[in-house]
Amino acid sequence: MSTATAAHYKEIIDRAIRAIHARTFYAEYPEHPKAYGEEAPAKGLDAFNAQLGKPFNGLLQQNPVAWIGEEVSPYTGKPLGITYPSFDTDTLIVRAGRAFEQWKKTPVDTRAEVLINALEKIKNRFFEIAYATQHTTGQSFVMSFQASGPHASDRALEALAMGYEELHRFPSQVVWEKPMGKTSVTLRKTYKPVPKGISLCIGCSTFPTWNSVPGIFASLITGNTVIVKPHPKSVYPIAIVVAEIQAALHEKGIDANVCQLAVDSSAQLITKPLAEHPLVKIIDYTGSSSFGDYIESLKGKVTFTEKAGVNSVIIDSVSDLKAVVQNVSFAVSLYSGQMCTAPQNFFIPETGVRQGDTTLPYEEVKKALVDAIAGLAGHPQMGPGTLGAIQNPATLKRVESVKELGQVLLEPKGLNNPEFPEARTCSPIVLEVDARDKGIYENEWFGPIVLIIKTKNTAQSVELAKDLAEKHGAITFSLYCTDEALAQSITEEMESVFVPVSLNLTGMIWVNQHATFSDFHVTGGNPAGNASFTNPEYVNKRFVWVGHRRAQ
Amino acid sequence: MSTATAAHYKEIIDRAIRAIHARTFYAEYPEHPKAYGEEAPAKGLDAFNAQLGKPFNGLLQQNPVAWIGEEVSPYTGKPLGITYPSFDTDTLIVRAGRAFEQWKKTPVDTRAEVLINALEKIKNRFFEIAYATQHTTGQSFVMSFQASGPHASDRALEALAMGYEELHRFPSQVVWEKPMGKTSVTLRKTYKPVPKGISLCIGCSTFPTWNSVPGIFASLITGNTVIVKPHPKSVYPIAIVVAEIQAALHEKGIDANVCQLAVDSSAQLITKPLAEHPLVKIIDYTGSSSFGDYIESLKGKVTFTEKAGVNSVIIDSVSDLKAVVQNVSFAVSLYSGQMCTAPQNFFIPETGVRQGDTTLPYEEVKKALVDAIAGLAGHPQMGPGTLGAIQNPATLKRVESVKELGQVLLEPKGLNNPEFPEARTCSPIVLEVDARDKGIYENEWFGPIVLIIKTKNTAQSVELAKDLAEKHGAITFSLYCTDEALAQSITEEMESVFVPVSLNLTGMIWVNQHATFSDFHVTGGNPAGNASFTNPEYVNKRFVWVGHRRAQ
Repeated sequence: MSTATAAHYKEIIDRAIRAIHARTFYAEYPEHPKAYGEEAPAKGLDAFNAQLGKPFNGLLQQNPVAWIGEEVSPYTGKPLGITYPSFDTDTLIVRAGRAFEQWKKTPVDTRAEVLINALEKIKNRFFEIAYATQHTTGQSFVMSFQASGPHASDRALEALAMGYEELHRFPSQVVWEKPMGKTSVTLRKTYKPVPKGISLCIGCSTFPTWNSVPGIFASLITGNTVIVKPHPKSVYPIAIVVAEIQAALHEKGIDANVCQLAVDSSAQLITKPLAEHPLVKIIDYTGSSSFGDYIESLKGKVTFTEKAGVNSVIIDSVSDLKAVVQNVSFAVSLYSGQMCTAPQNFFIPETGVRQGDTTLPYEEVKKALVDAIAGLAGHPQMGPGTLGAIQNPATLKRVESVKELGQVLLEPKGLNNPEFPEARTCSPIVLEVDARDKGIYENEWFGPIVLIIKTKNTAQSVELAKDLAEKHGAITFSLYCTDEALAQSITEEMESVFVPVSLNLTGMIWVNQHATFSDFHVTGGNPAGNASFTNPEYVNKRFVWVGHRRAQ
Repeated sequence: MSTATAAHYKEIIDRAIRAIHARTFYAEYPEHPKAYGEEAPAKGLDAFNAQLGKPFNGLLQQNPVAWIGEEVSPYTGKPLGITYPSFDTDTLIVRAGRAFEQWKKTPVDTRAEVLINALEKIKNRFFEIAYATQHTTGQSFVMSFQASGPHASDRALEALAMGYEELHRFPSQVVWEKPMGKTSVTLRKTYKPVPKGISLCIGCSTFPTWNSVPGIFASLITGNTVIVKPHPKSVYPIAIVVAEIQAALHEKGIDANVCQLAVDSSAQLITKPLAEHPLVKIIDYTGSSSFGDYIESLKGKVTFTEKAGVNSVIIDSVSDLKAVVQNVSFAVSLYSGQMCTAPQNFFIPETGVRQGDTTLPYEEVKKALVDAIAGLAGHPQMGPGTLGAIQNPATLKRVESVKELGQVLLEPKGLNNPEFPEARTCSPIVLEVDARDKGIYENEWFGPIVLIIKTKNTAQSVELAKDLAEKHGAITFSLYCTDEALAQSITEEMESVFVPVSLNLTGMIWVNQHATFSDFHVTGGNPAGNASFTNPEYVNKRFVWVGHRRAQ
């Protein structure tokens, strides 16, 4: 196992800082599984199989009050049987507070070295993390690998590097001289980025590492200690991450409680007691809007939230309808729509969609879209690997419940997954509703649910999509429009409610993918969330600049 | 009148950005009145005299509903007789919203040019602003000149430059290429700092420009429009500033309503209707803690507050007691303690204060401090020029009201000001209280009120000062301690509650002065306020990074 040397870690951070500013493609961790060596997949699978049915012993947190666990594989329907140590809230807070005294005094470069070292250790477990993610979230194996492994670690590195840069924004010490005529006054001044205290990271069930590591690494590099509270159904992947952070801390002689795992059960959640504790100063949160609004309302906390949004697609005009429906059908099908970035609402004008010199009738566009979605779900090879499995049984119920809300254009059904015949699967339901039915399409329908909304024209499509984004939030927005001036004007409309626009995506790139070092994930400007991976605010709200002065 | 050329403004901004990062002394605007030419003072006085008793006609805001004004000089006791145009809240909002559509599209460099041009115009009115400040706030003429003129403009430039830097943090456009084996995917990406909308700046009566211009310039450079709501008793200085910003906007063909003055009356304040308006997205506020807490509690707003704090001085050990009491007596007397940075609580151990090899008894230290305060107030030349006048009659009542709270060591009295015999003046009252009397000294007693708190020892002094800062906030903290290890440990205690420490200040530098381009004003980390002039957060919370992507 390779560990980061001091020179090595600095090189990695400098490269990441350059990448953040260049915003052209750059990845520290290759996304292709093959890049990790021939033995890695089997080693990862062995580790996963060895962990099933046993206590998770990788953490350095002492004296748990109980061992608990309730994860169930969406692919096999069977419990993973893994238990994790659980602790009283007070124990977690006291340990975090004690570790804070050491961590806040740890020099930034030492913190960076520890965290890069942790990322190196995590890299060695990407395959185990992939299996852990697959069998808790229901993502396909490849997506599990990419999202929870290299993509998550890139996001962690991005937050770390942005923090590192901000912490060095001002000099640590200067001599200040004020000329006063023939004399002058001189002071010695120091500038310290003082961390806020204890940070809480509340994870979600569908992206247990990708959505959590940015906040964890942002808080850690800025000198805060972190309590990681995963979703009780999706603990294993982030438990590995926390274990490796603890190992890296321990190697450097630092209290492993700088980063603690706080596992709870669905029957007895500890999220609120932790979030409301006066010593918790920072909260990172991914999840539902209602709980996110509660988190944001807590007094005296700095919060970073990613909540729900309603993502729209407007189809106005196209170069090639086939390429468009292929692209968007993949975007809605990927992980069965269980992505916060997945499109839900397709606004199509009843007057049809221009393609070159002709106008494709509304019905033709609608049919092409439905056929493409049906085709992908029904494809024996592509289907199961793209759609994965359904994380939460409630999602299946939601799919059933929407059937009566509109005209069902495509019935949902289970997929044939030869590898996992018991997998909980569901192909997308496609409904047609009218522009007047705002009460339906203004809701986020999490999961494989697609709404086609017939509008009068593109102007109405824009008006509705913008209004939804402003009131209910949006993380992504996809526009198909071949008229340059109109595309520009729609882009300005959407950016005024802080929604990023993806224009005319076709081929091997999809609206729901946000690339590290290039795409900001969530803008923080609309109700879909108040934070953004990774802009400067994402790190500089986690500490306070304090400037001291003294006589020379 | 010189105006900024395009090359000139860029040079000024670049210099300011360098100064922000160097944090050694730098001023764009010399603080000495003589630097502004021989004719400037008389010209300023003429302008001031010509304005008295007349409507303020310098604004470009059309069709006021009334002309109102209630300013009274603390030096003469007479109304200034100046009236200002007043407008309905809706009119202000509609105009700000309309101007926003133009201003948000104005390129950052054009915004910067307009704002630097405004600062050049404001510079030409520094002397009129000084008289306006003196006769609304009660500051001495020299302090009025420095605080409202060059120091305020430096703070405005600092905020502008920090905003300019943040707005250029990421490239405006890149070509992003993702290698995918033998092929690759290419997207064109743009990154836009999108302004939030309408900004409201709520001013205070004692520092009408210094406390307001940072927020105004920070919001303007980042593309927001600003409604400036001054304190009804202190309008004239900031009215000049707004008039010159409007003139600079108008010269460039931009709607002057990008920056509006919103004057109200004590009888009918419009602060709450403006602050609560859903289109107001950003609020800058200076004033009382109770109203500041209300401002911070408003949903859906980004707020930047400077509220009240309780500033402490701990005297542990000294090199030269005389130099110490001279320094701190000036600090408490400057503008009669009507500064948010003025010390209030002096913690002195009953065991005495070490000076070299001897220990000065508590009583001797106390007496030296009281004598120094009394000496300065009673000094015929130094007294009136240092203490100035009392802005608000309520402050005099407060001084009276505290007499029964402790042992009065120094009685307050009026000053003899030959230039303004009718001036509302008051020398500092000094009270002695015990460490147990927390109910007394935990309050901010705004004005010339000094408390000497007898503690068991320095450890108790630190415990109390830290506790006060954490619970009630502190903007400054002054420590006298010749033991290097102890000073370091106290510094760490105070920085843990986000209070900057000034150590062993003597001579011509005082704890209540925060230098632009070097000292952060307020840390934002304790209850004294949630913002800091000027850290990156102060500007980057005013806009949102939105990244668009499009097929090549």
